[in-house]
Amino acid sequence: MDMQYITILDILGTIVFAISGTMTALNNKFDLFGSLVIAFVTALGGGMLRDVLLGDAPVLWVKNPEYLLYVFTGYLLVLLFNPFILKLRKTLFLFDTIGIAIFTILGLEKTLELGFHPVIALTMGVISAVFGGVIRDLLTNIVPLIFRKEIYATACLTGGLCYLILENFNFNHDINIIATVVLIIIIRILAVRYKWSLTLIHQTIDYKL
Amino acid sequence: MDMQYITILDILGTIVFAISGTMTALNNKFDLFGSLVIAFVTALGGGMLRDVLLGDAPVLWVKNPEYLLYVFTGYLLVLLFNPFILKLRKTLFLFDTIGIAIFTILGLEKTLELGFHPVIALTMGVISAVFGGVIRDLLTNIVPLIFRKEIYATACLTGGLCYLILENFNFNHDINIIATVVLIIIIRILAVRYKWSLTLIHQTIDYKL
Amino acid sequence: MDMQYITILDILGTIVFAISGTMTALNNKFDLFGSLVIAFVTALGGGMLRDVLLGDAPVLWVKNPEYLLYVFTGYLLVLLFNPFILKLRKTLFLFDTIGIAIFTILGLEKTLELGFHPVIALTMGVISAVFGGVIRDLLTNIVPLIFRKEIYATACLTGGLCYLILENFNFNHDINIIATVVLIIIIRILAVRYKWSLTLIHQTIDYKL
Repeated sequence: MDMQYITILDILGTIVFAISGTMTALNNKFDLFGSLVIAFVTALGGGMLRDVLLGDAPVLWVKNPEYLLYVFTGYLLVLLFNPFILKLRKTLFLFDTIGIAIFTILGLEKTLELGFHPVIALTMGVISAVFGGVIRDLLTNIVPLIFRKEIYATACLTGGLCYLILENFNFNHDINIIATVVLIIIIRILAVRYKWSLTLIHQTIDYKL
Repeated sequence: MDMQYITILDILGTIVFAISGTMTALNNKFDLFGSLVIAFVTALGGGMLRDVLLGDAPVLWVKNPEYLLYVFTGYLLVLLFNPFILKLRKTLFLFDTIGIAIFTILGLEKTLELGFHPVIALTMGVISAVFGGVIRDLLTNIVPLIFRKEIYATACLTGGLCYLILENFNFNHDINIIATVVLIIIIRILAVRYKWSLTLIHQTIDYKL
Repeated sequence: MDMQYITILDILGTIVFAISGTMTALNNKFDLFGSLVIAFVTALGGGMLRDVLLGDAPVLWVKNPEYLLYVFTGYLLVLLFNPFILKLRKTLFLFDTIGIAIFTILGLEKTLELGFHPVIALTMGVISAVFGGVIRDLLTNIVPLIFRKEIYATACLTGGLCYLILENFNFNHDINIIATVVLIIIIRILAVRYKWSLTLIHQTIDYKL
């Protein structure tokens, strides 16, 4: 796939994550500055953590300040067109899902290029995609949603696994990316639609080390 | 300005932040060790995060262990002179404000010296100044105050912007630093005095991506 | 001591921490993926933070992917043998205590080998041992237990101090390690047995900077 497609999707994903972060923050009555910080960590937190753990510092947005601009764009869009954005709920859900798919692939490819083990690449793909949301939830003092609700990270994990297998068989790189993105989108839509979950039958363990 | 002034203010800022951390921890009934940890992250957390994101590791206090001594000094001061420190409330507020001003400038200058974009330097200035407090609030399980209350980070942001503009016009470096510190102090005092806030009129958005 | 002993204890410690993380997560009704994440951060979080702060990136598990396998082993053990593991409570407590002792020594030695000050090494030993648990508690939205309950981190601190002093007198390295591990275990067992704590007599400070 033309790298430009990936870049455009990366920018779109960053903006959508910033939108999601700003909305969560305003829902929690954060002030204008606080909401900007939450937009920032939601959009860039996963990639930041990935880069730090890989030792690829300075992290992405420090090397490419234009990412701050994408975050600010998402933030402004919420402030200016809030009621309108609410009507775009389904469109945003789709972009968000494309976002995690793209972030998974970008994290995976970066880690492989740096020469690490595929299992590490898979882990970094998931971290890139979901830890922005985890940090957002931490800062707004709620238990991170991805740990409790719906198939979210699992979609990234499955997509990443699919990507690794396809690459292993030397299929066309563009087709692998498209297949991975489509797989992640399908899993997530089905999971939300049919309320799939990974919860165990409730156990009343009361164990503390 | 003589670098020694900056160093002394940096040390004072670190001690005051350690005092603020220890008091928050004791307020939350943390034990003696827990309070020391909170003193440590409050005083050094912002600088740590900045160094990690910039790829300037090992972080400051690892390279300069004397910072641990400054933290311990602030911690001991609270344990030994607790009731007396309470009477110094206004003095501490002033030191705290000088602290965030100094931390903003130190973060900004370090980032510029490493050759990064001014916008990155501004961001790192704010991170240096406020993220110690954010981590303190996270560990004591409250929603970070800076996201909801008063103009705090915004004072750092405005001061940092002022510094960048003054530097751009090639004014005297010492005067730029003094002007920035004074501006941050004035903004914060006025904000607390007149209860400035950046809160939007409350919106009943109920949106989840 | 033969390095192999240390390696085996390190692996055992990692598995036990993963068990502790998985149990905490299931207790909090996390789903299967969320529990795996909590197992991962509990077992590897302290070492990760240590490596990032020391500038020794990529972090340990990225360089040695087999650590992910140890985490997965602990995770699976809980899922498969949950009721049985509950009966092993005392054994697990012992392993957990051996785990923090080993992690303290490993963090300490690594930092000294990199040429840092002994005080930094002591700090990194404690961070290696206890911050996995701190991150686990943060993600499950409870105030980190180590800050409030029992002598836990203090045992690591005392053990680490003992190790530094013994090394300073050039005693046999193996004996130093054994003495440190035994000291940490004894302190922790006594602390739990006799409910030692470091809490100050409750003070009604109501101070906010």
